Amino acid sequence: MASLKNVGERKLIENVLNIIRTPPGIGPGDDAAVIPAFKGNAVLCVDTLSFERHLSKGMSYEDFGWMAAAVNLSDLAAMGAEPIGLLAALSMPEYLDESVLYDIMTGMDECAGAYDAHIYGGDTKFGSGTVSCTAIGSLSGNPMLRSGAKPGDSVALTGPVGAAAAGFFAVENSLEKNVSLSSLLRPTPKIETGKRLSSSGAVTSCTDLSDGLAEAARSLCSNSHVGMDIYLEFIPEGEGVGLISSKLDIPKEDLMLYWGGDYELMFTFNNEKKDALYDLDIDFSIIGRVTDDDAPHIISNRGREVMKHGKY
Amino acid sequence: MASLKNVGERKLIENVLNIIRTPPGIGPGDDAAVIPAFKGNAVLCVDTLSFERHLSKGMSYEDFGWMAAAVNLSDLAAMGAEPIGLLAALSMPEYLDESVLYDIMTGMDECAGAYDAHIYGGDTKFGSGTVSCTAIGSLSGNPMLRSGAKPGDSVALTGPVGAAAAGFFAVENSLEKNVSLSSLLRPTPKIETGKRLSSSGAVTSCTDLSDGLAEAARSLCSNSHVGMDIYLEFIPEGEGVGLISSKLDIPKEDLMLYWGGDYELMFTFNNEKKDALYDLDIDFSIIGRVTDDDAPHIISNRGREVMKHGKY
Repeated sequence: MASLKNVGERKLIENVLNIIRTPPGIGPGDDAAVIPAFKGNAVLCVDTLSFERHLSKGMSYEDFGWMAAAVNLSDLAAMGAEPIGLLAALSMPEYLDESVLYDIMTGMDECAGAYDAHIYGGDTKFGSGTVSCTAIGSLSGNPMLRSGAKPGDSVALTGPVGAAAAGFFAVENSLEKNVSLSSLLRPTPKIETGKRLSSSGAVTSCTDLSDGLAEAARSLCSNSHVGMDIYLEFIPEGEGVGLISSKLDIPKEDLMLYWGGDYELMFTFNNEKKDALYDLDIDFSIIGRVTDDDAPHIISNRGREVMKHGKY
Repeated sequence: MASLKNVGERKLIENVLNIIRTPPGIGPGDDAAVIPAFKGNAVLCVDTLSFERHLSKGMSYEDFGWMAAAVNLSDLAAMGAEPIGLLAALSMPEYLDESVLYDIMTGMDECAGAYDAHIYGGDTKFGSGTVSCTAIGSLSGNPMLRSGAKPGDSVALTGPVGAAAAGFFAVENSLEKNVSLSSLLRPTPKIETGKRLSSSGAVTSCTDLSDGLAEAARSLCSNSHVGMDIYLEFIPEGEGVGLISSKLDIPKEDLMLYWGGDYELMFTFNNEKKDALYDLDIDFSIIGRVTDDDAPHIISNRGREVMKHGKY
């Protein structure tokens, strides 16, 4: 195959349009895309991944494309929105093989497709190796914000944490035969769970865990002007955490709290409305409660300590 | 002021939120933004500008921020859409002064404000100096596409061309006292004109001129599978074109056809519906007609020639 530069921008766009699924309305290729009218508010976010920071060892360009979509779909999930479309602005080193572009777009389209969303447009220029992905979704009810937690609320997680960190260390130390890498390479945003949570009326704040549990807790606390007491023993442990912790002598707590890459949701809820939550038919674990302090604390066999900053 | 790296991501975001106007709904600062429900279809586009390619001599960072918004709003204008919001994904060299970020966002917010749109979110990471701006707008009627021109249609322009190129050469040659730089530095997307054109029902294809008249004509021809005969003498000449052409011995035709940066619209229309166009109360010039050829031709005192590729 040829380098991106030798293929040329026009032909690259043409080739990408043949790879990705055709969206309803007007897709890529004109001055702008047209998404057919939808019900409710529009929910939007954008996040940039770079080869330098985010293309970790063991990750293919398809995984990278999936990831660029997933980080944004996870932000939609945290609001309770339904995904509709993505736009991708790529800055690509011109000497790269054209297959890199096709692999990235294939991975991105696969991730979008897993949630019935489509790639609606983009821009490819030569540059240093970044992908800025914009996601748009719809939301008929109230969004879940980071700012509504109240002292006395419970703190909950939609699933286990640490599997992405365990996968990362497994690849770094050639232990990938022992640990599943799916959490690291193909994270699955919790769209359906987010929609159900937002519809419950019980959730007072929510965010996703892509920067790790500690940073999620910090952001809910600072946006809601509250504190949290989180009990280490109540936090469900992700796949591979035990094995990597013992083989590499990394504390489980580090893998579970201070590394990112898990795409679960952390939320707080009003205890008086907890029946509405239990009616949702979703998995979640209560891991602590909201306090009138001003930062998250972790309670373990060492006692009660302010949670450190994440490392991710 | 401090470097971006020394200020840190959290404080930078906080400072930017204090600079830009607060949008309706949920603006930047949460997992995602929420734009209140609007009527019609959603129109979206994204375009990346880099310091290396687009920060031309004489341009301030505020101008650059304005430009990042304007290129995208111009794409909305070409569809006939009404702007609502922007998202900005910035990759910024960490050694830059923090004021660079604030200047870019101020310029972007000013451009959005000129069209009653708001900045709804973004992402700032350290990187090589690029701004990817996503624009979202609404459109109740049919979009104007690049693909509907038919042989026999007329070709029209919404205003004069070449002023941005004249400004560019003026700065390069220290002639900026003689030529207005507003077309180059603060281009104004033709939003109102685009909305009126799309509502007329007479327009068969449309695109904007940001990559120059020749590239616009090529894109309408290739997307519509038609040709064009464009008469050089009918094309209105932008401010400064005559002066720069004579002082620097650059053919007027080059400045007007083969350089970009003008934000007018080029469109084709069905002659049987031209009364609807004349009822719109907008300025436009008819510059040629659509043919059953397969490329745009320019007709001048040299005769009829295939239009060259743009240089922009």
